[in-house]
Amino acid sequence: MAYSELNAPMRTIMTPGPVEVDPRVLRAMSTPILGQFDPAFTTIMNEVMEMLRLVFQTKNKWAFPIDGTSRSGNEAILCSIIEPGDKVLVPIFGRFGHLLVEICERYGAEVHTMECPWGEVFEPQAVIAEIKKVSPKITAIVHGETSTGCMQPLKEIGRACRELGVLLVVDAVASIGGTDVKVDEWCIDGLIGGTQKCLSVPSGMAPITYNERIEEIIQSRKKVERGIATDEENQQVSLSRPIASNYFDLSMLQDYWGPRRLNHHTEATSMIYALREGLRLVLEEGLETRFARHELHEAALVEGIKAMGLMLFGDGKNKLPCVTCIEIPKGIDGEAVRDMLLNEFGIEIASSFGPLHGKIWRIGTMGFSCRKENILFVLASLEAVLLRKGFQVNRGEALQAALDVYVGKKEKMVASQRSL
Amino acid sequence: MAYSELNAPMRTIMTPGPVEVDPRVLRAMSTPILGQFDPAFTTIMNEVMEMLRLVFQTKNKWAFPIDGTSRSGNEAILCSIIEPGDKVLVPIFGRFGHLLVEICERYGAEVHTMECPWGEVFEPQAVIAEIKKVSPKITAIVHGETSTGCMQPLKEIGRACRELGVLLVVDAVASIGGTDVKVDEWCIDGLIGGTQKCLSVPSGMAPITYNERIEEIIQSRKKVERGIATDEENQQVSLSRPIASNYFDLSMLQDYWGPRRLNHHTEATSMIYALREGLRLVLEEGLETRFARHELHEAALVEGIKAMGLMLFGDGKNKLPCVTCIEIPKGIDGEAVRDMLLNEFGIEIASSFGPLHGKIWRIGTMGFSCRKENILFVLASLEAVLLRKGFQVNRGEALQAALDVYVGKKEKMVASQRSL
Repeated sequence: MAYSELNAPMRTIMTPGPVEVDPRVLRAMSTPILGQFDPAFTTIMNEVMEMLRLVFQTKNKWAFPIDGTSRSGNEAILCSIIEPGDKVLVPIFGRFGHLLVEICERYGAEVHTMECPWGEVFEPQAVIAEIKKVSPKITAIVHGETSTGCMQPLKEIGRACRELGVLLVVDAVASIGGTDVKVDEWCIDGLIGGTQKCLSVPSGMAPITYNERIEEIIQSRKKVERGIATDEENQQVSLSRPIASNYFDLSMLQDYWGPRRLNHHTEATSMIYALREGLRLVLEEGLETRFARHELHEAALVEGIKAMGLMLFGDGKNKLPCVTCIEIPKGIDGEAVRDMLLNEFGIEIASSFGPLHGKIWRIGTMGFSCRKENILFVLASLEAVLLRKGFQVNRGEALQAALDVYVGKKEKMVASQRSL
Repeated sequence: MAYSELNAPMRTIMTPGPVEVDPRVLRAMSTPILGQFDPAFTTIMNEVMEMLRLVFQTKNKWAFPIDGTSRSGNEAILCSIIEPGDKVLVPIFGRFGHLLVEICERYGAEVHTMECPWGEVFEPQAVIAEIKKVSPKITAIVHGETSTGCMQPLKEIGRACRELGVLLVVDAVASIGGTDVKVDEWCIDGLIGGTQKCLSVPSGMAPITYNERIEEIIQSRKKVERGIATDEENQQVSLSRPIASNYFDLSMLQDYWGPRRLNHHTEATSMIYALREGLRLVLEEGLETRFARHELHEAALVEGIKAMGLMLFGDGKNKLPCVTCIEIPKGIDGEAVRDMLLNEFGIEIASSFGPLHGKIWRIGTMGFSCRKENILFVLASLEAVLLRKGFQVNRGEALQAALDVYVGKKEKMVASQRSL
């Protein structure tokens, strides 16, 4: 029965999540906990809501985390607004579009899909035309598709949805905190973020936000839980079908996060501490500066990869800044390269899913993992491993190309700061 | 935009959860994270499964946490086995029985209930008679009901269920790690534990276990997720209705926790570290010793409360060892007492729900919070606050009574160890 102390090796984590966690966030998690209704704790909950609004660039009343991993946020929003038979349009451009379909189907939606090849995104007008044709209650779409490294432009789609009276639900798990996600300006009704990617907080929470259009639907399906409801509430009969999940019932979660503080679950204290510190780091850095940092390191990585003689995968025009996909060269065993990177260098990069499995590697440049020494180390290591596996890279070029970006960009950043 | 560093006041947390977290668990959470498919991490996942089996006292193949707060475990097991129209019997003896009803109803079950007054439990024979009458597919019942401080004997009910071919699902959120829960010996088919109570790990995970009877149902509803399924799997049509929730679909969670390691969510790394350390602490202490510790401190608290002149609430014969319910004396404002305990002494105790709200206080003696200095401090503080509020307690008696227990029991414990 003797289990050893926890011994986790140190890694350089360059996947599209989970990524390295800022030491300040790790430290916050070791803070002794508070009870869930302790005023000191509910104050922290309120602060987290405020900070989430800033990161989501929204004035929405509701912005709080679901206590579950990222996809729990998708399920919470979708199951709270879908009633059986509702029409949902899901444009699919990678694995996580399929996930949205899965969730919607399980909750009884009539799902319409449109697909484009993995590695591309949709022309907004094509999506808008489909929305007009299908006339769904909801359009659900991924913003940053980590499986392909592509990012779907949403502004025009959002405005069209608003005009047409269609709800727009967006999975921004991979993009939030790493690139612009303008919830209000883009007319997004419900949005899900992730913690373990550009926010650099451990997996286990899914911050969401939604506006009054979604709140109205939720309120119409509201139910106060048996065992804590008043007699009057127990006698109320909802006209709409109740939300199928208790855990993901946003009408109950609102009453827990709102002033009534009605017990639902017991909030995940240490994860809230982590999320608060992660959000604080984002706001201290500033959204614009943070997004510029992600672009800088992306540029250094991309130039390094190209200089090495490798090919990028996917539509460069709509690249997700925090994920870079690389075609695995012919004759090279992608998994053997990943294994050697992990075992010899302690570096983790990712493979992909479905049709792209074995065809591309994915390198994440997210949050705390997105820093110069990591970019330089992953380029140097990948070059060495590929040489070892018999692939003739352009020796020594990758680091020079990356350093060129850092030197050049640094001058530009200083210049741009001067001009302000 | 200047949010201060996280400043959480130190509290003595004597509620029925969440409770104080062992410093070793807090420290484990500050460990830098690993990627989810890093062999170093999957080894940790496997160790957690092994340790959970020991704590659950089971040989079940499946024992792993759901990434959500405790009730997510209830929902995961119930939604994975309930198909619309299935009959479920829920004997209710407090708030969390009502929660089981809620969850079962939302997933379309035909729910039959039986109730006894809050503060009592059921005669096993009464439950067995009802099972025979209703002939449900599932009996779902709470083991330790924190809302009333009562514990339902399960052994006879479990054996009857097995004989009758009825599945028994047990919510042991409050009891696991604090008192005996014998999954195999009591013939429990599916069981849910909590982290933030007697395991003294922060809220945010729900460890569950289930046997081959439940696995068989799950397998018959199995679905591999779109976007990662093979072509063959995409073409398979399940004969049963798929599980309504994607997040809680145990057939997918099995493939993630099992050798196939098929991606579902991204495991909540830091919470797994916490759970591993919490379980390691339980196993180092030893189940028997740990349960005896909970009984010792419970006895000291109970004797102190009685000596002070307060009345215990509920059926003493079936008391949950880790929760002590106290009747709020007539004329005393229970919330004002709780506020003063928190604000002057930094001690948190709980009120209760529904019909017991305003009528009882609940003091938890769980996990790391369950230690001598906490018991003595809460008794001394409660006495002082009650005197301040004008209630005439027997001055000075509570601590003497508690100390008597500690002195007496210590001798007994030494004696019993000698006789082994």
